Amino acid sequence: MTLRMYDLAGSEPDRRFSPYCWRIRMALAHKKLAVETIPWRFTEKAEIAASGQLLVPVLVDGERWIADSWAIANYLEDAYPDAPSLFGGPAARSLTRHYSSFGDSLVLAIFPFVALDILGHVADKDRDYFRATREKRVGTTLEAFVAGRDGKLAAFRASLAPLRVTLKSQPFFGGEEPLYADYAVFGPLQWARCISPFALLEEGDPVKLWRDRLLDSFGGLARKSPAYDV
Amino acid sequence: MTLRMYDLAGSEPDRRFSPYCWRIRMALAHKKLAVETIPWRFTEKAEIAASGQLLVPVLVDGERWIADSWAIANYLEDAYPDAPSLFGGPAARSLTRHYSSFGDSLVLAIFPFVALDILGHVADKDRDYFRATREKRVGTTLEAFVAGRDGKLAAFRASLAPLRVTLKSQPFFGGEEPLYADYAVFGPLQWARCISPFALLEEGDPVKLWRDRLLDSFGGLARKSPAYDV
Repeated sequence: MTLRMYDLAGSEPDRRFSPYCWRIRMALAHKKLAVETIPWRFTEKAEIAASGQLLVPVLVDGERWIADSWAIANYLEDAYPDAPSLFGGPAARSLTRHYSSFGDSLVLAIFPFVALDILGHVADKDRDYFRATREKRVGTTLEAFVAGRDGKLAAFRASLAPLRVTLKSQPFFGGEEPLYADYAVFGPLQWARCISPFALLEEGDPVKLWRDRLLDSFGGLARKSPAYDV
Repeated sequence: MTLRMYDLAGSEPDRRFSPYCWRIRMALAHKKLAVETIPWRFTEKAEIAASGQLLVPVLVDGERWIADSWAIANYLEDAYPDAPSLFGGPAARSLTRHYSSFGDSLVLAIFPFVALDILGHVADKDRDYFRATREKRVGTTLEAFVAGRDGKLAAFRASLAPLRVTLKSQPFFGGEEPLYADYAVFGPLQWARCISPFALLEEGDPVKLWRDRLLDSFGGLARKSPAYDV
């Protein structure tokens, strides 16, 4: 039975832009598992109620509904042990947990740059929901929240220094080939380019070169998806 | 033949305080390898000239001299394959590289809190060298550099949020037991408590609880070393 995944979309059904869903799209490709992705909007909570919570990604495998990107990655690894490993062994799985936590923090770090641009892509029926929930979270209007973003760019790029050191010495966090650790950090960067023309990464930055290698992985799965060329 | 390691010391020969040397002390204990540590001061460059560079840790294994904590960890893993693995497999070794890069960045993040306290512990003959090289690096006096440290503490602790998330869900980065990834991040925190009474970590913080578990590892190797109780 083909796996199904609820995948965040906006006004254009093909523009998929959840950082957490992108992790799982890449993980499914890594495991060579076919998936039917179902475009889902923020306010379609009833569609995923069977998962017991309100956020995507949600994976449906037969009768099983699984939510949360880290839980889904672990489910895929255990349910499909003969497919290429997402982690590379038990110790590597434990070590990957922190890449997921770090990737989550990267979503928060990127949000001040792209928050308003997201609003330009969400479905009409989601606009009020998105603005209200996000403005409550950040304590100001989205317009005010992103106003000083140019001045924050140098500090954001500097914060990526440890990634840069690692990616100068090896092509992927996983080594010669990418692993889920790579996808966990890539998801937030793919999210940004799917909904914002803002150039977060500098040309020639080893972090951007690594991201570009992941855009080209799996036949260009992420590169071919609607996004800005940044 | 017993391994030898040049290990940074100060005015007290037993107070060993290099973040990078602590990684290797823990790695050697993990591999159950006996080591003779040789107290070394910043200005004793001639003592380690055979390593081809000027910094510790330097490991001496028979005729071989190896420098750089990451290179030494890899050397130990490959030269002593029957001893407990520092990484947990090839993928895990690749994934560990970034823990080392991140740990290096943690040294830079901690330095503004402890820079002046280090000066109180370095050997008399090292004091001018330490002050001159570090003041050149930070562009001001050590006194001025640490003056606002209390006001920076909240931001430092907040920056550890991704570590905290991971360490709430598992006891070590390596899983149920520590691996070199743990020692790579622990080294900078052990460095800080060896030379400064400043309380970088808050009571009850999962990061501090994890650090305390590592202090107790290997019969309390790191806890028994001269340090402040913070």
